[in-house]
Amino acid sequence: MNPDAILRRLHAIRDRNDWQRFHSPKNLAMAASVEMAELVEIFQWLDEDESRHLSPEKHAHAGQEVADILMYLMLLCAELGIDMEQALLAKLADNERRFAQ
Amino acid sequence: MNPDAILRRLHAIRDRNDWQRFHSPKNLAMAASVEMAELVEIFQWLDEDESRHLSPEKHAHAGQEVADILMYLMLLCAELGIDMEQALLAKLADNERRFAQ
Amino acid sequence: MNPDAILRRLHAIRDRNDWQRFHSPKNLAMAASVEMAELVEIFQWLDEDESRHLSPEKHAHAGQEVADILMYLMLLCAELGIDMEQALLAKLADNERRFAQ
Amino acid sequence: MNPDAILRRLHAIRDRNDWQRFHSPKNLAMAASVEMAELVEIFQWLDEDESRHLSPEKHAHAGQEVADILMYLMLLCAELGIDMEQALLAKLADNERRFAQ
Repeated sequence: MNPDAILRRLHAIRDRNDWQRFHSPKNLAMAASVEMAELVEIFQWLDEDESRHLSPEKHAHAGQEVADILMYLMLLCAELGIDMEQALLAKLADNERRFAQ
Repeated sequence: MNPDAILRRLHAIRDRNDWQRFHSPKNLAMAASVEMAELVEIFQWLDEDESRHLSPEKHAHAGQEVADILMYLMLLCAELGIDMEQALLAKLADNERRFAQ
Repeated sequence: MNPDAILRRLHAIRDRNDWQRFHSPKNLAMAASVEMAELVEIFQWLDEDESRHLSPEKHAHAGQEVADILMYLMLLCAELGIDMEQALLAKLADNERRFAQ
Repeated sequence: MNPDAILRRLHAIRDRNDWQRFHSPKNLAMAASVEMAELVEIFQWLDEDESRHLSPEKHAHAGQEVADILMYLMLLCAELGIDMEQALLAKLADNERRFAQ
């Protein structure tokens, strides 16, 4: 996965639809949270064991919602100038210090 | 970024703390949604323009929350057997068909 | 509004559909959070001023989502044995001590 | 519970702190969603049965989070001119038509 290439494609969709004015960090965080709830919705009436054995339809749906969340997070990080990979590696190292010693 | 290497480190933290029994897909989706709300909280009282110009402290905080969300999504996808990159590329192609023609 | 009467009607719907086994506090909190995101979705691409002047259709939709949230919160409080009115009055008094002196 | 009296007290806190400029419907919906996630967080690592038997500390915490959500919903409905009781009764009647016949 080349994050820069994906971001270029996300920005191409945005620009083709004239969505740039909507893409403030505030709005992108809201949109990501709405997609997150659509992921949560898949699991809300399942018990934990059922959540490990999704139907093929729900499994595909979960992948789509994860993708929607990731796309909004990538757009958000681009607007804020956050390097998503650096942020992930820094927090992971921090968690290792806190929880894995 | 090597997703497999990151996942191994996430699983090492999980196993060191005996968290595996908590990591049902249902619970991981809930945990991701809680981290998402912590990201949203940064922006809740800012107007859209202010959200584009975060203080250094809020900027760093946003990166940490994005990282927390990503880590739970990676753990979730691992539990479900979802290839996050494939899911992202499939949904991106779908969005291109729907929105960029 | 008589909360007891409303709760009886909510429980009648639940029992008619045999939903009781789904109504753990954990699940009801998740369901409330999904409805909350449907409320947030109404506002996600609006600026703050636009959010003050919803179309009649969005205004009606917002009322429905608020109602969905309230119904899940009432069901949740009933399961947990929380008196919603008492909880509200206690937190309000607390906020008055913290923020209004 | 007299909703008008509670709303007056919420507005008094708001005005004492000069928060009115922050209280657009968009922002109030975001704030309510953040409080909702704090409610969800109480349950995220509990299984469904554990969620029915909260510790006294978690039980009190849940009541506080429910109260926070209600306060933001009341402020939101006031800004939008939504009668919360009417909205609830209308949606309840609708659910009865859909699910209880």
